[in-house]
Amino acid sequence: MSIQVFGLPVSRGVAIGRAVLVASSRVDVAHYFVPASQTRREIERLRRARDAVAAELSALQRDLPAEAPSELSALLDVHLMLLHDEVLAEAIMHWIQERHYNAEWALSAQLEVVARQFDEMEDEYLRGRKADMEQVTERMLRALSRDGMVAVSPVAAPARGAEGDAAEDPLVLVANDIAPADMLQFKRSVFTGFVTDVGGKTSHTAIVARSMDIPAVVGAREASRLIRQDDWVVIDGDSGVVIVNPSPIVLEEYRFRQRQSELERARLNRLRHTPALTLDGENVELLANIELPRDAQAAVEAGAVGVGLFRTEFLFMNRGGVLPSEEEQFEAYRSVVQTMAGLPVTVRTVDIGADKPLDRMTLQELRHEHALNPALGLRAIRWSLAEPAMFRQQIRAILRASAYGRIKLLLPMVVHLREIRQTMEIITRARQQLLDAGHPIGEVELGAMIEVPAAVMMLPAFFRYFDFVSIGTNDLIQYTLAIDRADEQVAHLYDPWHPAVLKLIADTIACAQRLGKGVSVCGEMAGDPAFTELLLGMGLRSFSMHPAQVAGIKQRVLRADTRKLQGAIERALQSEDPQTFWSTVGVRADDAAEAVVHH
Amino acid sequence: MSIQVFGLPVSRGVAIGRAVLVASSRVDVAHYFVPASQTRREIERLRRARDAVAAELSALQRDLPAEAPSELSALLDVHLMLLHDEVLAEAIMHWIQERHYNAEWALSAQLEVVARQFDEMEDEYLRGRKADMEQVTERMLRALSRDGMVAVSPVAAPARGAEGDAAEDPLVLVANDIAPADMLQFKRSVFTGFVTDVGGKTSHTAIVARSMDIPAVVGAREASRLIRQDDWVVIDGDSGVVIVNPSPIVLEEYRFRQRQSELERARLNRLRHTPALTLDGENVELLANIELPRDAQAAVEAGAVGVGLFRTEFLFMNRGGVLPSEEEQFEAYRSVVQTMAGLPVTVRTVDIGADKPLDRMTLQELRHEHALNPALGLRAIRWSLAEPAMFRQQIRAILRASAYGRIKLLLPMVVHLREIRQTMEIITRARQQLLDAGHPIGEVELGAMIEVPAAVMMLPAFFRYFDFVSIGTNDLIQYTLAIDRADEQVAHLYDPWHPAVLKLIADTIACAQRLGKGVSVCGEMAGDPAFTELLLGMGLRSFSMHPAQVAGIKQRVLRADTRKLQGAIERALQSEDPQTFWSTVGVRADDAAEAVVHH
Repeated sequence: MSIQVFGLPVSRGVAIGRAVLVASSRVDVAHYFVPASQTRREIERLRRARDAVAAELSALQRDLPAEAPSELSALLDVHLMLLHDEVLAEAIMHWIQERHYNAEWALSAQLEVVARQFDEMEDEYLRGRKADMEQVTERMLRALSRDGMVAVSPVAAPARGAEGDAAEDPLVLVANDIAPADMLQFKRSVFTGFVTDVGGKTSHTAIVARSMDIPAVVGAREASRLIRQDDWVVIDGDSGVVIVNPSPIVLEEYRFRQRQSELERARLNRLRHTPALTLDGENVELLANIELPRDAQAAVEAGAVGVGLFRTEFLFMNRGGVLPSEEEQFEAYRSVVQTMAGLPVTVRTVDIGADKPLDRMTLQELRHEHALNPALGLRAIRWSLAEPAMFRQQIRAILRASAYGRIKLLLPMVVHLREIRQTMEIITRARQQLLDAGHPIGEVELGAMIEVPAAVMMLPAFFRYFDFVSIGTNDLIQYTLAIDRADEQVAHLYDPWHPAVLKLIADTIACAQRLGKGVSVCGEMAGDPAFTELLLGMGLRSFSMHPAQVAGIKQRVLRADTRKLQGAIERALQSEDPQTFWSTVGVRADDAAEAVVHH
Repeated sequence: MSIQVFGLPVSRGVAIGRAVLVASSRVDVAHYFVPASQTRREIERLRRARDAVAAELSALQRDLPAEAPSELSALLDVHLMLLHDEVLAEAIMHWIQERHYNAEWALSAQLEVVARQFDEMEDEYLRGRKADMEQVTERMLRALSRDGMVAVSPVAAPARGAEGDAAEDPLVLVANDIAPADMLQFKRSVFTGFVTDVGGKTSHTAIVARSMDIPAVVGAREASRLIRQDDWVVIDGDSGVVIVNPSPIVLEEYRFRQRQSELERARLNRLRHTPALTLDGENVELLANIELPRDAQAAVEAGAVGVGLFRTEFLFMNRGGVLPSEEEQFEAYRSVVQTMAGLPVTVRTVDIGADKPLDRMTLQELRHEHALNPALGLRAIRWSLAEPAMFRQQIRAILRASAYGRIKLLLPMVVHLREIRQTMEIITRARQQLLDAGHPIGEVELGAMIEVPAAVMMLPAFFRYFDFVSIGTNDLIQYTLAIDRADEQVAHLYDPWHPAVLKLIADTIACAQRLGKGVSVCGEMAGDPAFTELLLGMGLRSFSMHPAQVAGIKQRVLRADTRKLQGAIERALQSEDPQTFWSTVGVRADDAAEAVVHH
């Protein structure tokens, strides 16, 4: 039976595919498909993990401290029963044999099935017993990770031998929520669309999907409960509708729309080598945001004239607690610099910390407790300065890579002058040590992210130290309005068009230009065509965005006349409702609707 | 043996007393002492709760759904064993009989003892089993609350019959952390000092302790583990040292210091009826922040010339989920207005929501899930507008109270113009309905808290709707710098002296004055003598603070000459390090050290 689910359309386009359900888990679980030839090996891993956990629990029971409450041993008995429950074990193996899930995914997929049974129980207390189930599963997941998770090479698509006919079908991902680390994993995978129960227009899933140009609907409430494994799903990223098991007529209609947008995309791609000049001849720098070294190739192919933001935190994620060495980082940075072949590469030092934990086993987790408001906590430059050994290592790696091309060093979340001074001291010392050791070092420009309100007000002082700044609009909006964009309850109040936000952005651009410094925008606004004219009008000439967005923004640039925009900008900044003003007065409405390519 | 523990000195003075340990709990637990005559009744309540929970669990076990995993029944058996554990039951009764704790406190105190045993276990998994213990306890706590917690009248001091000699000793509170709701409870209690393991200079405990003028040391790490029930404790709120079981010599030294500060306080109190005029004759309005109607009396006694901030959220707390009716709220507001006898009373609509939950059983808890960054979530006016029925009720109660005196209505966390328009519509309609129903209504001024950076930038537009604003410096600093002041890891970066913060405050004061509107500061800076001259120099003439701080600030006002301050202010606002500038150039250093009273 065909059903419809409604959510927020956060990334445009149509995706059609079979549903792959991914359960959320408290332990970071890698989700990948194993080759058919390796399923037996996965089942064997699972068995070993179970035996290991059973042995551990028995040992614990034997060695219980004398003063322990007598009920503790009885509890362990129950957990041992769970571990040896044959019905459960069969179900887990099924996921591996039939779906080719890796062992961790199979385990958490089955936990999800059982968890749903618990969730349906009427009594809150019984529902709470799910926790015991989860803890046994977690212990098994840990045993698995000790067992060497990385030994298996993930494959992008499932090779579903038993259901041969389905092997070629495109896949869409359906989940309650997708962790940033998983999203990174899925980027390399074959999913053609995303549906999540939670999240808003500005959640991480939405941002990544949009930047990958993959259709997505989030905030679809019950989607992950209503959609079953292997259901056919149509994701309409324009309207926010998700259609489960569509009728043939509906399906045909969506296939038609899908073909149309592919044609449109091909048309945009022809702009790749066109210089980004406005109608009045202003040269605009369109740069790429990248997350992993391999993304640099996509940046070049998209026609970006450099990397405006290399988010290095992704080098640190999904590594099972092993941090990348200086050497490994150096190779990563050098590879990007070399791929970009003389074009500038802006490397941002890690923006990890309370709000973006690496994974369960890192320094972060060990040393720092959970923060109540991670977005206002120890993150980015604060975290780097609190972990000086790691920070020095990253700085050294970046400086060494500067010998191979043009590197710009970008510091995230700077608020206090003393943070700058401390960082400069680390850089100066690292540079001297490297030179003493005979390493060649190129010229490195130093810049800061402008993403906290205080930073905008400190600009004149900051520019005594910095050559350039890059405006991180997402965080800047978040702090200026005190709205967490990932919080569904207030996401409707997160507003890039808020007069205070526009004023801070305009002030930043104006201050940089007055002082002859570089200024770029690397937040989501840079890749959103709705803001291109506005930012051009404010004087911005450097935009950094996901490679997939470059062509679309270039099209807007080619059609813009900055001379005509300046007057409108001043009035927009005075307006109490800049969005309405801009859409009715500032720019002709048909501009936004059209998609004609000019050469 | 005497030991010393070191923490952060957050509220000045010396406290000496016997330790009362309060354990933290996931369920809101009321902590109070019961009269000796009622301990048998408490034990009886406990028994009834246990029997009720046992009956519930047995019923659940009998009616388990057929598809439930077979291990579930075995788990329930273990929990039933726990419930009937005689050793445990004896220990809980001991707290009631010997300490005169109420049943809930006794239960959570014993849970804490057992929890510590678990925490000391080496294996993480065994430690995790504590959760089962906690869940049984929680279910009993809920059963107790159904049983009518409010029937017992709390007494402020324990009447410890069995240890008669100790009955007169002053008490100090030692806890891992103190919940805001508990802190409210303890305000009415007899504790003469506070020690907590966690928290920073700007945590809730610190702020309340400071405003109550009770010595406190927070962030004392292991204090609640090292200090035992009834230990003698000296809290040095000046240096952050906590001395457990001090030697007679040390004790005598601290008693001497205690007497000295009492003398100092008495001296300040003589300023009560002196008008707050600067040396150059500027009249300064010193107002009180209050949390409960009964605080109004303290405001009058402290010589405050009005209530600058009535934090109404406290009317909503600790009520076991029952929200106050319009009638009840009306009585509360009217009582304050009448106590203030014609002096202005600024009533702030509730600032509850994601960051300040009421308690486990309210609408809040039922409707909204846990926010990842509650400070950036659904709180204050956002919450009120999302709960319009409650909001209308509060507005009606405030409007009705306006017939009995001078009320100013203050809206928290306003950021968007549409929030103002929506609120005004609710007010206009409520006013009309009340008039139609024949209720008298006085003139009510409308104002907004300025506590989000965007609000400062919106001031000219906001003032089309508002008669006055009140600057909430704590939150304003938090959002401007993106620092959670309650997060120990970054608390050192929370800085009221940051140039961006001072600029926003100065801009707000200047804008209000230019437009002839009222402006006040009601955050912590208003009650901190270190900022009095600075704020006076910026043009501020209205300060709102805890009643206990009024005399100290008045002393600063009496010594200030605003004509001399203005020049220094401009230079301070240009300075990159205003704090150093202000302490060396702006104001003579000896001013800050002196405490001479001028009449």
